[in-house]
Amino acid sequence: MSSDFLKAQELLKNISNNQSTYEINEALKTIKRHDENLFLQTLNSLDTFTLANIATITPEYILEDILEHLSIAKIAKAVEELESDDATDLIKRFEEINPQKTLTILNRLSSEDKEEILRLKNYDENTAGAYMQTEIFTASLDESIEKAIKRYRILKKSEKIDQIFQIYITDKDGKLCNSINLSDLLLWDFKLSFADIIKNNTNKYKSYSVKDYDDIQMAIDMVEDYDLSVLAVVNEEGVLLGRITYDDIHDLIQDNATEQIYNLAGVDKEVEEESALKAAKARAFWLMINLTTSLISANIISLFSGEIEKLVALAVLMPIVASMGGNTGSQALAVTVRKLSLNEVEFKDAKKVILRESGISLLNGFIFAIIMSIIAFIWFKTAMLGLVIALSMLINLALAGFVGSFVPLTLKKFKIDPAVGSSVVITAITDALGFFSFLLLAKMMLL
Amino acid sequence: MSSDFLKAQELLKNISNNQSTYEINEALKTIKRHDENLFLQTLNSLDTFTLANIATITPEYILEDILEHLSIAKIAKAVEELESDDATDLIKRFEEINPQKTLTILNRLSSEDKEEILRLKNYDENTAGAYMQTEIFTASLDESIEKAIKRYRILKKSEKIDQIFQIYITDKDGKLCNSINLSDLLLWDFKLSFADIIKNNTNKYKSYSVKDYDDIQMAIDMVEDYDLSVLAVVNEEGVLLGRITYDDIHDLIQDNATEQIYNLAGVDKEVEEESALKAAKARAFWLMINLTTSLISANIISLFSGEIEKLVALAVLMPIVASMGGNTGSQALAVTVRKLSLNEVEFKDAKKVILRESGISLLNGFIFAIIMSIIAFIWFKTAMLGLVIALSMLINLALAGFVGSFVPLTLKKFKIDPAVGSSVVITAITDALGFFSFLLLAKMMLL
Repeated sequence: MSSDFLKAQELLKNISNNQSTYEINEALKTIKRHDENLFLQTLNSLDTFTLANIATITPEYILEDILEHLSIAKIAKAVEELESDDATDLIKRFEEINPQKTLTILNRLSSEDKEEILRLKNYDENTAGAYMQTEIFTASLDESIEKAIKRYRILKKSEKIDQIFQIYITDKDGKLCNSINLSDLLLWDFKLSFADIIKNNTNKYKSYSVKDYDDIQMAIDMVEDYDLSVLAVVNEEGVLLGRITYDDIHDLIQDNATEQIYNLAGVDKEVEEESALKAAKARAFWLMINLTTSLISANIISLFSGEIEKLVALAVLMPIVASMGGNTGSQALAVTVRKLSLNEVEFKDAKKVILRESGISLLNGFIFAIIMSIIAFIWFKTAMLGLVIALSMLINLALAGFVGSFVPLTLKKFKIDPAVGSSVVITAITDALGFFSFLLLAKMMLL
Repeated sequence: MSSDFLKAQELLKNISNNQSTYEINEALKTIKRHDENLFLQTLNSLDTFTLANIATITPEYILEDILEHLSIAKIAKAVEELESDDATDLIKRFEEINPQKTLTILNRLSSEDKEEILRLKNYDENTAGAYMQTEIFTASLDESIEKAIKRYRILKKSEKIDQIFQIYITDKDGKLCNSINLSDLLLWDFKLSFADIIKNNTNKYKSYSVKDYDDIQMAIDMVEDYDLSVLAVVNEEGVLLGRITYDDIHDLIQDNATEQIYNLAGVDKEVEEESALKAAKARAFWLMINLTTSLISANIISLFSGEIEKLVALAVLMPIVASMGGNTGSQALAVTVRKLSLNEVEFKDAKKVILRESGISLLNGFIFAIIMSIIAFIWFKTAMLGLVIALSMLINLALAGFVGSFVPLTLKKFKIDPAVGSSVVITAITDALGFFSFLLLAKMMLL
């Protein structure tokens, strides 16, 4: 029996506060790999608090087991253990697996929790509102620190709020006025009111906030630009609705990066998490587009069938130019897409970026033109063939740098994700141009 | 005159606490774009605190201006305004620009600050120690909360510490025992000692820490797995040395993602931030490897020169198989590399991942084999040519999924970054195999 299986059993036998959710989840996955019955038994024996936390991070296949094998009452209790944003996420994930069962779970919740979840569920997943949690600690200007802390202790005891980083000061209409970091709060005499300490420090206690319908990317940018641990979310009127914390931002940064890497390769992140069949279908979409552009290249080659028949060396060498162009284009693309997503360049810097990328690729074009002309000359003993491949290498590489930066910048200008589809477009151009320039030059100069 | 230039001037005329470092930096960059003299004048007029903060985030070309145009005394003062980790980073960046001037700056610092920076500079950039800041707030078990807070107020007033999130409890040897979040601290009567509150809550106040020579990736994983805002750094003996905060982790996550995207495209992130010439040189390295593998493919094609002369359609169609294989391989590679870096798969899951990727690509291999055989048949009116391209498409795509997952998993097994070089290896294989399988099958079945 494998040692990690034994370790996992040991860990799950004595669940206490000593194990993190992460560790318990790993152990559960291990047990499921080795012994399905023991896994279901363990799943059943989890307390609702542990179950709730596991559910927020566990993969879909374990969520399916939870829905299938645990009672509605227990699942509902677990959902109520969570904070609003996590509860909403979990309900959304349950819905994807079994919408009907999820509805019965929702109906088991307290009407307050149910309403909250339904309200949060309504936010589009690109908005800041979709990522906020509504459990926050607010105080009014005229309250003393002391009194607020007393109130906080009671709220915390009743588990109505979780770890806090700031106290939000709101006016009588609930509008957000200031935020005070706990580390700053400790500096003051607790007898003072919030008005007293804010009076001469309005800027220090300024609130950073986004609106609930703002793009979540705005929230990410703010957290990064101002190094925030937590960001307030307000509505159109400035009324405080919730907060987004650094850990949600972490997840979003990772998700964005994954999406970018996937998009650049022609993979759909959302679908990829589902069955292999669905993943294959989504990938086939991009392969189909690639096939179409390959057929265009093939058509270009077929225009020069006569030349290839006369000089078969052309068929031997032509993929080299295309491949080098594709690589150069991918380099320029990766750099441009990434700089755009990190806000390191904007459209107004477009000219600078395109010049730099074209310059780099032109330089490499020169170098590889020389290298390749020597190789072609030695290989085929034809000086003119060396010149032809040199010229087409230079043209294709220089252009690869240009399109590799121009295409994503243009997509961004039209508010299209520059990572989606850029690769295919750029490879299509470098392939077509690589074959065309090489074969046309050969026809004109060699034959 | 452009409006952003006017806005930037306005903003820099009245620098107060109202502007964030980020905003001031953006304004400086705008002014430099429009008016070099005004830029230098503004740079000179910045107070050392603002200058220090700007220096931590500003691009290299502005750092160069700072080194060139400001006095050593002023720069040294600015460095002293920063926390240890930021000061060390800045000194490192200065060193890259002008090592001698940086040395004179270092010698201007207080001997305490200088020693601290030299010590932190010694950490390898892959270690947790390189990212820690040494300004932390510690207390001993027998101290009362009240007393600790008084001490904290004094330290804070003298600017020896910045925003804190936790109080670290250490024993008499400085070894880290517990960490208490400020939000938990507020729950207790301040007359109590830390020993009192920890007594029955050892697990709640457990410290999360890494060792200073641990890989920084360990720190990132811990912060993500346990949703931490701050992580302690200890030495081999467990003595508390410093902390790493969520904002450093943000930057590291972004940096890692950028590195991955760049590596997959054959771009070196470090060099990319330097001059275009250096960037071109680093990119040329990967292009040279690509040229080598292209030459291998060209050699494979040349083995079949006779066949291509007899049937030029082979030259027309052969790039399609290679291109489709390359794309399929890139899809599998992107998914595998990303899952590895997010710890979603480990080497023990290798079989599962390879099976899934090979399955997906085999399925798409079937689909595109059928599509392409029909197209080839219609185009060239030769049924056998359709069969040849179908078979080679199936072989190449299925194998692309296999190598696309096998290569990064194997690299990871040998502790090599799976994003570096994988693309080139996989494209080399799919190209070579694409040409070889297609041309060999054509030779055997057609000619």
